[in-house]
Amino acid sequence: MYSFKNDYSEGAHPRILNALMESNMVQEEGYGYDRHTQNAISKIKDMIGNQDIDVHLIAGGTQTNLTAIGAFLRPHEACVCVHTGHIAVHETGAIECTGHKVITVDSPDGKITTGKIQDVLNAHTDEHCVKPKLVYISNPTELGTIYTKSELECISEFCKSKGLILYADGARLGCAICAKESGVTLSDMCRLTDAFFIGATKNGALLGEALVIKNEVLKEDFRYHIKQRGALLAKGRLLGIQFEELFNDGLYFELASHANEMARLLEGGLKDAGCGFLVDSPTNQIFPILENNLIEKLEKKFRFYSWEKVDDNRSAIRLVTSWATPKDAVLEFIREIQS
Amino acid sequence: MYSFKNDYSEGAHPRILNALMESNMVQEEGYGYDRHTQNAISKIKDMIGNQDIDVHLIAGGTQTNLTAIGAFLRPHEACVCVHTGHIAVHETGAIECTGHKVITVDSPDGKITTGKIQDVLNAHTDEHCVKPKLVYISNPTELGTIYTKSELECISEFCKSKGLILYADGARLGCAICAKESGVTLSDMCRLTDAFFIGATKNGALLGEALVIKNEVLKEDFRYHIKQRGALLAKGRLLGIQFEELFNDGLYFELASHANEMARLLEGGLKDAGCGFLVDSPTNQIFPILENNLIEKLEKKFRFYSWEKVDDNRSAIRLVTSWATPKDAVLEFIREIQS
Amino acid sequence: MYSFKNDYSEGAHPRILNALMESNMVQEEGYGYDRHTQNAISKIKDMIGNQDIDVHLIAGGTQTNLTAIGAFLRPHEACVCVHTGHIAVHETGAIECTGHKVITVDSPDGKITTGKIQDVLNAHTDEHCVKPKLVYISNPTELGTIYTKSELECISEFCKSKGLILYADGARLGCAICAKESGVTLSDMCRLTDAFFIGATKNGALLGEALVIKNEVLKEDFRYHIKQRGALLAKGRLLGIQFEELFNDGLYFELASHANEMARLLEGGLKDAGCGFLVDSPTNQIFPILENNLIEKLEKKFRFYSWEKVDDNRSAIRLVTSWATPKDAVLEFIREIQS
Amino acid sequence: MYSFKNDYSEGAHPRILNALMESNMVQEEGYGYDRHTQNAISKIKDMIGNQDIDVHLIAGGTQTNLTAIGAFLRPHEACVCVHTGHIAVHETGAIECTGHKVITVDSPDGKITTGKIQDVLNAHTDEHCVKPKLVYISNPTELGTIYTKSELECISEFCKSKGLILYADGARLGCAICAKESGVTLSDMCRLTDAFFIGATKNGALLGEALVIKNEVLKEDFRYHIKQRGALLAKGRLLGIQFEELFNDGLYFELASHANEMARLLEGGLKDAGCGFLVDSPTNQIFPILENNLIEKLEKKFRFYSWEKVDDNRSAIRLVTSWATPKDAVLEFIREIQS
Repeated sequence: MYSFKNDYSEGAHPRILNALMESNMVQEEGYGYDRHTQNAISKIKDMIGNQDIDVHLIAGGTQTNLTAIGAFLRPHEACVCVHTGHIAVHETGAIECTGHKVITVDSPDGKITTGKIQDVLNAHTDEHCVKPKLVYISNPTELGTIYTKSELECISEFCKSKGLILYADGARLGCAICAKESGVTLSDMCRLTDAFFIGATKNGALLGEALVIKNEVLKEDFRYHIKQRGALLAKGRLLGIQFEELFNDGLYFELASHANEMARLLEGGLKDAGCGFLVDSPTNQIFPILENNLIEKLEKKFRFYSWEKVDDNRSAIRLVTSWATPKDAVLEFIREIQS
Repeated sequence: MYSFKNDYSEGAHPRILNALMESNMVQEEGYGYDRHTQNAISKIKDMIGNQDIDVHLIAGGTQTNLTAIGAFLRPHEACVCVHTGHIAVHETGAIECTGHKVITVDSPDGKITTGKIQDVLNAHTDEHCVKPKLVYISNPTELGTIYTKSELECISEFCKSKGLILYADGARLGCAICAKESGVTLSDMCRLTDAFFIGATKNGALLGEALVIKNEVLKEDFRYHIKQRGALLAKGRLLGIQFEELFNDGLYFELASHANEMARLLEGGLKDAGCGFLVDSPTNQIFPILENNLIEKLEKKFRFYSWEKVDDNRSAIRLVTSWATPKDAVLEFIREIQS
Repeated sequence: MYSFKNDYSEGAHPRILNALMESNMVQEEGYGYDRHTQNAISKIKDMIGNQDIDVHLIAGGTQTNLTAIGAFLRPHEACVCVHTGHIAVHETGAIECTGHKVITVDSPDGKITTGKIQDVLNAHTDEHCVKPKLVYISNPTELGTIYTKSELECISEFCKSKGLILYADGARLGCAICAKESGVTLSDMCRLTDAFFIGATKNGALLGEALVIKNEVLKEDFRYHIKQRGALLAKGRLLGIQFEELFNDGLYFELASHANEMARLLEGGLKDAGCGFLVDSPTNQIFPILENNLIEKLEKKFRFYSWEKVDDNRSAIRLVTSWATPKDAVLEFIREIQS
Repeated sequence: MYSFKNDYSEGAHPRILNALMESNMVQEEGYGYDRHTQNAISKIKDMIGNQDIDVHLIAGGTQTNLTAIGAFLRPHEACVCVHTGHIAVHETGAIECTGHKVITVDSPDGKITTGKIQDVLNAHTDEHCVKPKLVYISNPTELGTIYTKSELECISEFCKSKGLILYADGARLGCAICAKESGVTLSDMCRLTDAFFIGATKNGALLGEALVIKNEVLKEDFRYHIKQRGALLAKGRLLGIQFEELFNDGLYFELASHANEMARLLEGGLKDAGCGFLVDSPTNQIFPILENNLIEKLEKKFRFYSWEKVDDNRSAIRLVTSWATPKDAVLEFIREIQS
C-alpha cells in the first residue's frame, strides 16, 4: 500500500549509499574534520557564492533549530513565528527547553508578515515581558506555501531595521527553491537571513541538515553548542558524504524538482476531478479537500494523513510526494479519485 | 598512515551497509516505528532476557547521556561520577546545560567505588547543596578499565540501598563484555543498573546507541524527551537496520572481540619490547609509556594521541583498536617498536 | 497626586512594621527555621484546617510561580492558562526559562474553562508535542474577576480526572475570598487545588507569598527548589513576622475587605455617573470605560493605567484600590468624575 | 544562649527600621523606580566615584549570583572558582540550574590565583569541553580571608588579558573593605572587576545586595534578567530605603567595622588562651581550633558551628560576629574559654 504520508519513508538516494560504500574503509578524522565534510562545506559555499559563511552539518531539523536558537539568544530573548510553526507545535517544546519563549501569531497560510511581527513588538516593550529577538520562518512553510523573493526581502529589511535575527528553517528548502513560482535561490536565502538551514533528511539523505550562519556575531563558538546539545557526530563523515553527493551535479535540486513534479501531477489530477484545496501549495505537500466517504475508500489503497475537518461531509487530507515517489503511484491515486 | 587515534575512523561494517542497501526503497514508518527498529528492539530484549525493559535507539553517546539524565532527574538532583567521566569532561557541559550538577570524585583508574559515593552523600545533606541522585559509570571506563561483576553488584546494591539511580554509559560496552577478565554479560548490565546503553558508533555502526531502561519509574514518557532533545530521527530505520544487523548472528560481539584481540596483540608486542603501561586495560584502548624520541619516530608512521607526560623523558600514548583494525597494521606497529 | 496604579504603592500595614520593630534584636535561626515562620505556618494550617499541607514563605509572586512550576513539572510537561495569565505575559518568560512551555487559551474574562483545557488536551496527544500537565489559574484573575466555588469544583474535578495538576496564583487571593459574590474560602482553595499561594505583597506586607502544597507528590524536597532558585531568604524571619501578623486577628481579610470596599465605592460612583465597565469585577481592580478627554482631565489629578482603547472616543482605564486606599481619595475621584 | 552561628540572626539596624517607618505611607512607583532606590543608586555611584556603572538592588546573594552569571554567560561558557566557592557548594546547583558548569580549583585559603585559572584554561581548549569564561571570587572568601589590592590587580589584569569576566561576590564585602590589612576600597572593587555586589543582608539590612555592573557589554537588558529570575520586587522601596540608610553617614562601614572589631576581640582572647586557628582571617568569621571537650562545654553556653575535625582530640569551630554582636557576649565567651 503506497504511502503519501511523508517524504522520509524510504532510505536514501542510491548515489548516496554508493558513496558511503566506496569511502567506507578509508580512515577519516572524527567530529566533522573529515575530508568529505570539508568538501561538502566548500561546495555549499560555492553554490551560495559566499566564502565568509560558516556551514555546520547536523543530523536533524529539531536538533538544528534548538542548537541554533539556543546559541543565538540570551535568556530573556524570544522567538516569533506563526501559530503553525514547527518550533511552536511539533518539537515538544524543544525551544522552551533551552529557556526561550516562542511567541506565535496567527497566519492562515503558514507565512509571517512584517505587520504581524510589528504587533508582537508593540506588545513587548519592557522588562516585564520577554524581548522578541528572533523571527523564525520556514520555507516552504508547514502548509507547503513559499515566500516570494520580495516577501523575503521585505521581512529581511524589517528585521534588520528592528535588530531582529531572521532565521529560516529549510527542512524542505529544495522544494521551495525548485517551485516554479519561487524565484528564490540558495544565495537569496543566505543574503536575506542571518542563518538558515538546507534540509536533506526530507530530500533524499538518510539524515542531515546543513546550517548556514552568515551573521558574524552568531558564528562564534558554534561548534561548542553543537557538541553541548549532543549533535556532534563522531562519524561526521556520514553527513559529509551525503551532502557531498547531494551537491554533486545538482542532485539535491533534481530530487526536489521530482518531488514537486509529482505533487503537480497529483494536484492536476485532483483538480481535473473537481477537487478543491485547503491552501494553494506549489511544493511537495498538498491538501486536497475530499468527501469523507471518498477518503475512507482511498484509505484502503493508500496511506496518508487526515489533516482537518472542513465541514460535516468533507475533510482536507495531506499528500506528500518525495524524491522517491514513483509516477505510477501518483497515476494510480488519480485513477482512484477519478473512478 | 594508519591511525590508532580512535575507533570511529572508518565507516560501518560492510554487513550494515548491505542491509541499508537491501532495505533502501521499502517504505517504512518514521520516528522509530519502522519494522527494523521494532525488530532490533526485540532482539535486544531477547539477548538481555528481559521483555519488560524499554529500549530506545539514539544517534550518539552525548545525546543519549543528556536525554536520559535530563529525563531522570528533578532540577535539584545531581550526578556523581569519577573526575575522568565523559559527562564531566568531554561533553561540553551537556549535563549542566540540562540544569544538573555533575559532582566528581577522584579515581586513578576511571572506576568509582561505594566509598567515594558515600563521601559525596556525606557532604550533601541539606537543601543548601544539590541532592546526589544518579551515579554515572562507564564500562569500560575512559581509561579502558572494566568493572568486574562483583564490583558492579556491590555498586548496584549500594545505590539501591541509598535510593540512587545507577546509570551506565556503554559507548564501548561490547569491549567490556568481550574482555577475558569480564564475566559481565548484557543481562548483568541490565540486572545491575537502572538504565544503560549499548554503544554501536564505536563498534561498527555509522552511528547509534541503544538505551535500555529497566527501572519502571524512569520509563514514563521517554519518547517525549528524545524528541525534545532533538534526538528522534525521522528515518529511525537508519538506527533500526544497524542494530538489527549487529545483533544478528552475534556480529556485535564478534566486532568487539576483534578490537580487543588487536589490542592484546599490540599490548603483547609492547610488553615484549619492555614497555610499561599507564593503567592495566583489558579492552581496546591501551596506554603504553614510551620514550619521547621513540614517540616522535612512531608519529612519522602512525597516528595516535599523546595522552600525558610521565617524566622528562617518557610519555604515555593512547592506542585504540577497533572492529576495523587490520592485523597487519598492528604487526607493523610492533615491528616499528621493536626495531 | 493620588495613585490608583496598583496595590503596592505604599509600604506595609503599621502593625507589620511594629512587629518587625518589637522582634528586631532577638536572635533567630536563618532560612525559615525562625520561630515566627514556624508560627505563621501553624496559623495558616489552622486557618485552612489541614495539618498535612506544606507551607513555604517566598518573597514574590513570579518567584513563587517559577519555583513551584519548575519543581512540579518534568522537562516535557507544559502549563495551560488563559492568554492574559500572568505567567504567560508578565513574567518575562520566567516559566519558559525553567524549560516549560506555557500554552494559552483565549478567554474574555481571564477565567479558564474545562472546555478550553480539553481543547488543549485534544491538540497534544503524542511525543511530537509537549504534554499539558499543569493548569494555572489565578483567583482573582488579571482582570479582577473571580471563580465561584462551583466553577473551581468543576475545574478541580476535571483536572483530577485527567491527571492534571491544578495550581492557583493567589497574588490577590484576599480580595477574591472577601468578595461578596465569592463563597470561596482558604479551605476551599486548598481542597480544590494541588497547590496555591496566598499573596501578601499586594495585601499589606512589604513582600511575601505563602505557598501551600497539598498534593503529596509535589511536596518532596521543595526547600531544595526554593534555595536553588535563590528564593530562600537568610532572614526568613522577615517573611515569618509579616504572615504571623497578617493572620493574627484576621488582619489579612480585613485589609482585603477594605480594598474591595473602596473599589465598590469607586464603582458605585462611576456607575452613578453613567459609566460602563470593560468587565464585571467584584475585587479591587476595576476597568471603567471613559471618554478620552475625561481621562486626560483625570490624569492631571490622579495616577492610573490606561488599559485599552475601546473605540475612537473612549478607552478603559484600570483603577486599583488597596488596604491603604483612603476613602477621601475615592470620594475625590468620584467628585471629579461627576463634575 | 548567644549565637555566633552567623551574621543574620537579628533583624535590621534600628536606623533602617526607622527609615521604613517614616516613609511607609508615601506612595512610590513599583519595581525599583521609587525615589529611595534611585537615591540609593546615586549614593553608591558617588561612593564608588563612577557615574557610568549600573547598579541593581536584589534581595539575596544566591539570587544575585544566578541572575548575574545566568545573564553574563552564553550556554557553553563556564565559571571558575575555588572548591569552597559559595556557588560551588552552597547554592544547591543554582548556577548549573541556569545551564552553566562551575569548574573548581583547590585552594587552602579560599582564594584563587592566576596560576590556578591558567591550569583550567590549559585543560579546556576545544569544543569538547566547556569554555571557561567567568572567574568567580568572593571577598572576603568563605573562610574569612581577603584579597589584597595587589592580588586583585593581578587577577584583574590576567582576566582582562584572557578575555575572562571577573565577578566578585561581596556578601560580606563591608568586612573585607574595613579589615585593617585590606587597602581595598569600593572604588577598587569596581575598577578591578567587571561586576561585583555589595552585600547588606549580612551587614545590618533585612535583605538586599547591590549589584554593580561596570563592563558595558554586561549591562544590556539586565532588568529583564532580574524580572525573569523572579528577583524584581514589586515594592523595590524596601531595598531602596535600606541601602539609602546604609550609605548615609557611612553606616554600612561602621557596622562592618564593628563586626570586625568584635572578631578581633574574640580572636585576641582566644590567642591569649593559647588557641590556634585553621586559617588567618582578618574579617568577621574566625575558625579557632579547640579541644573537643572544651567545644562540648562551650556548646552549653553558646551557639556556633563545628567546622571540621582537625585531629582525634581537636576540631575547628566557626565563630561569626556581626553589626549586632554585643561586646559583652564576646567577653563572656572569652571568659568561658579562659576559665
